[in-house]
Amino acid sequence: MTDVIIAPLDQLEARTFAGLQNAGADEVSAGAAIRAMLHASRLGIDSHGVRLTPHYARVLRSGRVNPTPKMQIRRTAIGSAVLDADNGLGHAAGYAAMELACSLAKEAGVGAVGVINSSHFGAAGAYALAGAEAGCIAVSMSNTDSIVGLHGGAERFHGTNPVAVGAPVPDQKPWLLDMATSSIPFNRVLLYKTLGRTLPAGVAADQSGQPTQDPALVEMLMPLGGIDFGFKGAALAGMVTLFSAILTGSTLDHELIRMAETHDFETPRRMGHFCLAVDPGQFLGRALYDEAISRYLAALRTSAAREGQTVMAPGDREWAVEVERQRSGIPVDQETAQFLGLIP
Amino acid sequence: MTDVIIAPLDQLEARTFAGLQNAGADEVSAGAAIRAMLHASRLGIDSHGVRLTPHYARVLRSGRVNPTPKMQIRRTAIGSAVLDADNGLGHAAGYAAMELACSLAKEAGVGAVGVINSSHFGAAGAYALAGAEAGCIAVSMSNTDSIVGLHGGAERFHGTNPVAVGAPVPDQKPWLLDMATSSIPFNRVLLYKTLGRTLPAGVAADQSGQPTQDPALVEMLMPLGGIDFGFKGAALAGMVTLFSAILTGSTLDHELIRMAETHDFETPRRMGHFCLAVDPGQFLGRALYDEAISRYLAALRTSAAREGQTVMAPGDREWAVEVERQRSGIPVDQETAQFLGLIP
Repeated sequence: MTDVIIAPLDQLEARTFAGLQNAGADEVSAGAAIRAMLHASRLGIDSHGVRLTPHYARVLRSGRVNPTPKMQIRRTAIGSAVLDADNGLGHAAGYAAMELACSLAKEAGVGAVGVINSSHFGAAGAYALAGAEAGCIAVSMSNTDSIVGLHGGAERFHGTNPVAVGAPVPDQKPWLLDMATSSIPFNRVLLYKTLGRTLPAGVAADQSGQPTQDPALVEMLMPLGGIDFGFKGAALAGMVTLFSAILTGSTLDHELIRMAETHDFETPRRMGHFCLAVDPGQFLGRALYDEAISRYLAALRTSAAREGQTVMAPGDREWAVEVERQRSGIPVDQETAQFLGLIP
Repeated sequence: MTDVIIAPLDQLEARTFAGLQNAGADEVSAGAAIRAMLHASRLGIDSHGVRLTPHYARVLRSGRVNPTPKMQIRRTAIGSAVLDADNGLGHAAGYAAMELACSLAKEAGVGAVGVINSSHFGAAGAYALAGAEAGCIAVSMSNTDSIVGLHGGAERFHGTNPVAVGAPVPDQKPWLLDMATSSIPFNRVLLYKTLGRTLPAGVAADQSGQPTQDPALVEMLMPLGGIDFGFKGAALAGMVTLFSAILTGSTLDHELIRMAETHDFETPRRMGHFCLAVDPGQFLGRALYDEAISRYLAALRTSAAREGQTVMAPGDREWAVEVERQRSGIPVDQETAQFLGLIP
C-alpha cells in the first residue's frame, strides 16, 4: 500500500471542490460530487472517496462528462419520473433523483425515478442515505462496466452493480446498506497483488473462469455467493441491471465504455441509475414504523455473538469509522494528495 | 431420501384443492394456495410445493389460519395500499397484493402494497411471476421465523427471508429470481443429515455460532456470503424484514411463532409481506424496455461458460424443470401422497 497522508475534512472539502471547479464543473455538479465523495471518505469507503477527484477532473476535461449539464425531469406518472442527466457527473443526478423519488413518495406513497444519460454513480449509499435523511426507505442502484463473471461463466459480464438501501431510525443514524453484488471490489485484487497476499476462496477467477486465489491470475471477479452459491449474486447483479439500465433504455454492463481501462475518455457513457423511495408514514403510520425499527435494531444489537465477534446492523461499522475520521481526518493516497496540492 | 411417487399435474391439483377445502378453506383461499404450491412443484422448488398441503390443512383446522378470511384493502395513497389478510392463507394475500400493486403501477408508474395479518407466504416467486405476467417488473418478499444467524452471530436471528423479482420478456418466459437470503434452506440440512453427507463450507453453524459442515451439529444457517462475506446476506435479510415487517408494523422474525417447530398451532402469526410493481411502459416506454431485456438475455445466454458449466438467467433452470415435469409429473413424498390419497 502506498503511503497515505491524513487530511482534515474541511481542507479536503475545499480542495476537492476547487479541483472539480478548475476542471470546469459548475457549482451544482461539483457540490454533489464532493458531497458523495466525502460521504464515502468519511465512512471508510475509500474506493469511492476523494481518490476519484483526479479521475473526475480528467473526464470533465476530456469530454466524456459534461461540466455544465442541464438536467431535465420528465414526470411520467404520479409516482414515477425520468431524469435526464445530460451526461453530467452522476452524483448530481443521483441526489436529484433521490430527492425527486422522496417527493413523489410523499405524494403517492412510493416514488420511482430512472436516470438516463448519466456517468459514474459514485457510492450508491450516498443517495440511499439522503433518502433516509428525508424520512423515506430509499433504494439506489446503478449498473457498472463488466468485471464480474456469471455463475459458471468464463468472461466478464456484469459490473459490480451496487445496491444501497437506507431507512430512517428515530434518534439514531439510519440503517444503511451499501453493497456490491460481487464479494469484493476489483481494487482489492490489485491491493492484494501489491501486498503479495492470497485472496479468499470463491471471490475471483482466472481467464478460463476457474476460481483462483492468486491475484496475479485474476481476470474477473465472481458474484456474491462464491463457488457454490454465486447464482444468487449473479441474479442480484442482474436485478440491478434490470432496474438501472433495462428499465431506462440505458447502456448494458457489457456495452459500457470502461470507466478507466480504456483509451476513450471523450464519449459519454450513457449510464442509467434507479432510485426508489417509500414513505413509511403512508403505510401503517410513522409512529408504528418508528417503534418497529427501534425494536428491531435493539434486538439485533443485543443478539448473541460468536466468541471474538461483534454483531452489527448495516451501517454500524461505517458510522464508527465516521466518528473516528471526523476527529482524526481522512487518509488520502499520495497521488490524490499531490493532485489536491496537499503535498508538493 | 424417502421414496417418492410421481403424480400427474391435474390429479395433484384436484387432490390438493380438495385437501384444503376439506380443512375448511374457502374457494379463493384454496385456489390461491394450490396455485402457489403447484407453481413451486412445477418449477422444482419442492420445499414450497404440494408437500405443504398437510401443514396448511392442519393450521386451517387448528385456528392459526382463518379458512374463510375477509381480506380488506385500504388505499393509503395513489401508489400505495395496505392489505389486511384477516389471518387467512398467505397465498391469497400474496396474489391479491401483487395484483393490486400492478394496478397501482399502471396508474401511478409504481405501486407498493404492504400485507398485514397474514400467514406463511409460500414461494415468493409465485407472486413475482404473477406480476411479470401482468406486464410489470415485480418484487415480492416476506420475513419468516428466525433460523439464520447474523454475520458473526451465535443465535438464530433472521428468517431465510426470501426476495423474488420477476420481469416480463417478449415471447419468452419471464426473468424470475426467487432466492432465500441464506445460502441454503434448513430442510437441506435435514436432508444431508439423513443422507450422511457433509455440508458445503460457510452455510451453517453450531450452537456457539462456529461454522460447521456436520449437519448433526447445525443449530442455525449462516447468511448468504458465508464466513467472509455473510454481512451482505445478513443485510439483505434485514432489508426483507424492513419492507415486510417493519414498514407494515408486523411481527419481527425473532418474535414469530415458529411455522412447525412449536406447540402453538392456534394463535395467528400476524406475518407481513411486501409487494412492489413498476410499469416499464411508464419510464422510457415498453418498446425500448422490450428491446433492452431481449438484448440483455441474448448476451447473457451466449456469454462464455467455464468448461463443463452452463450460464443461465434467473429462472432458466426452473423453466426447464417445468417442461420436464409437465410431461412426466410431479414427485410427491410418501407422507404427502398418503394425505392426498394418492397411495393407500
